[in-house]
Amino acid sequence: MKLATLQQGGRDGTLVVVSRDLARCRAVPAIAPTLLAAMDGWERAEPQLRQVYDALNSGADQGEAFDEAACHSPLPRTWQWADGSAYINHVELVRRARGAEVPASFYTDPLMYQGGSDGFIPPRGTVVAREEWGIDFEAEVTVVTGDVPMGASAEQAARAIRLVMLVNDVSLRSLIPGELAKGFGFLQSKPASAFSPVAVTPDELGAAWQGAKVHLPLQVHLNGELFGKPNAGVDMTFDFGQLVAHVAKTRALCAGSIVGSGTVSNKQGNLWGSSIANGGVGYCCLAEVRTYETIEQGKPATPFMQHGDVVRIDMRDGAGRSIFGTIENRVDTASAA
Amino acid sequence: MKLATLQQGGRDGTLVVVSRDLARCRAVPAIAPTLLAAMDGWERAEPQLRQVYDALNSGADQGEAFDEAACHSPLPRTWQWADGSAYINHVELVRRARGAEVPASFYTDPLMYQGGSDGFIPPRGTVVAREEWGIDFEAEVTVVTGDVPMGASAEQAARAIRLVMLVNDVSLRSLIPGELAKGFGFLQSKPASAFSPVAVTPDELGAAWQGAKVHLPLQVHLNGELFGKPNAGVDMTFDFGQLVAHVAKTRALCAGSIVGSGTVSNKQGNLWGSSIANGGVGYCCLAEVRTYETIEQGKPATPFMQHGDVVRIDMRDGAGRSIFGTIENRVDTASAA
Repeated sequence: MKLATLQQGGRDGTLVVVSRDLARCRAVPAIAPTLLAAMDGWERAEPQLRQVYDALNSGADQGEAFDEAACHSPLPRTWQWADGSAYINHVELVRRARGAEVPASFYTDPLMYQGGSDGFIPPRGTVVAREEWGIDFEAEVTVVTGDVPMGASAEQAARAIRLVMLVNDVSLRSLIPGELAKGFGFLQSKPASAFSPVAVTPDELGAAWQGAKVHLPLQVHLNGELFGKPNAGVDMTFDFGQLVAHVAKTRALCAGSIVGSGTVSNKQGNLWGSSIANGGVGYCCLAEVRTYETIEQGKPATPFMQHGDVVRIDMRDGAGRSIFGTIENRVDTASAA
Repeated sequence: MKLATLQQGGRDGTLVVVSRDLARCRAVPAIAPTLLAAMDGWERAEPQLRQVYDALNSGADQGEAFDEAACHSPLPRTWQWADGSAYINHVELVRRARGAEVPASFYTDPLMYQGGSDGFIPPRGTVVAREEWGIDFEAEVTVVTGDVPMGASAEQAARAIRLVMLVNDVSLRSLIPGELAKGFGFLQSKPASAFSPVAVTPDELGAAWQGAKVHLPLQVHLNGELFGKPNAGVDMTFDFGQLVAHVAKTRALCAGSIVGSGTVSNKQGNLWGSSIANGGVGYCCLAEVRTYETIEQGKPATPFMQHGDVVRIDMRDGAGRSIFGTIENRVDTASAA
């Protein structure tokens, strides 16, 4: 099943069920006015939403035309956003670039930060930030959970996964070192993220959803050029069950909580071989190519995003069809002056 | 004006207006079913809520009996919870105890962490945690904001403060060093917090609300004995306008966001003089007395909370009347086994 939220109605938008091919949609006020409301009563809402979904797919209901550009993030705001760093390759590169070891515990205990969830930007929204903040994207996979009790096992946590989405976890790289040096984690350096137009139930991914991971390439385009296509099912040290269970160790999670994978990153040889141009799978953030450059050339060469730059994030099934719709965020530094 | 949320209705509870003396209350479904809904439309709701408040105070409306024990946290869940460390004395002590300097920037750039806001515990709720996690309380003052635009000044941010509450920011001290060493801040070490039964508009504090600070002692009792009574208006390096503006530097804040002061802490001479028994103002968390013990005696002597321990947090006006009602949390380690 595919769900989206239109930028109309109140602060939480308007829930629509979207056809598998992303062509048609149907608002469902009698079932749930918003996705957040559907998450609160998922057991009741889900079977009814699936009936609408089936009718859209079969053509029994023609619905309305679906416009990704009219969407907000599926949850324009929510109760919880916690983001892991499940692709340890990314962490290894970042550490190697600054001459530090990766502690052994990082392979058994997920690195994760508490994010802000009070307002996300739309999938086609603008990233408003100052250029000197070091504007970067991070292309990731995320899940939305139902209620998860405190102390849930990874298996229990995996069963509580309701939806899968993509995210551009906007990162302000030049603010990060100062914030991390203070010791309390990210705050100003992680502004509002943008999620994919469409959230899908795990069954929608078919065989690509296995072991609580999404086994498909995540595509990133920067200013129209393919920049990355690593497989999100490869080199993911912690699956989503483990990531959700990590949050739940000392507290329950409320339905509608979002947990992220961290920047998708596959192990590759070196700077030369890792780029798309040279046959590699590329990168899901600018910071990663900059770490290769730092390791091999002594300093980064690729700049962070500048005014007008556009990042596009998408994931396609085996037949090349977009699963989640496309995130496309343009950077606007003028409005942040 | 005073507002509270009863543990009835849906996940967000039921909003009631509470009389100034905390004796009577009135549900207001025609104005706003929940406090969260009132925050979303504050400009419309506030004058109507004030009419109900005036009627309760004058006796024109007898309302219902108000029972603090029936309350949830005023916002049982919300979009944002960011907690500062505005009382630098606390930071200085913690650093001194481990032989570290306080960076000069800490006096101009607030230390703050992003907390989880997807589920708080009720004011009289139980803290379920394992004893080996090092269970501590942190008594603080917090504010609830309206919408705050990105880049707001401290003055603009102060004007966006809608409500004031107290909080017990539960902290799992034994999990903190490991998490902070990982570099991404608190996650498991900051479980669900408990807020005061009642949230009040700043005008309700009268002259005690000055310069976006609350100039009254914050009272903490541990197992029935007075443990702390530092003045929340003293030694607060950053006021609430500055704290909210810190969050807003790179992103907007949604109405209903909670921003905290950090553990209230007044500068005192030493371990001997700082305790209530010896005429000091005491402490708002166990960690603080433990830092004095570490500095002066080489190691901490006061244990963290154990099964059955109860912390009570309250603030009273000049006439000794409770302003926010009382937080009273009992520790239950048996249920976290």
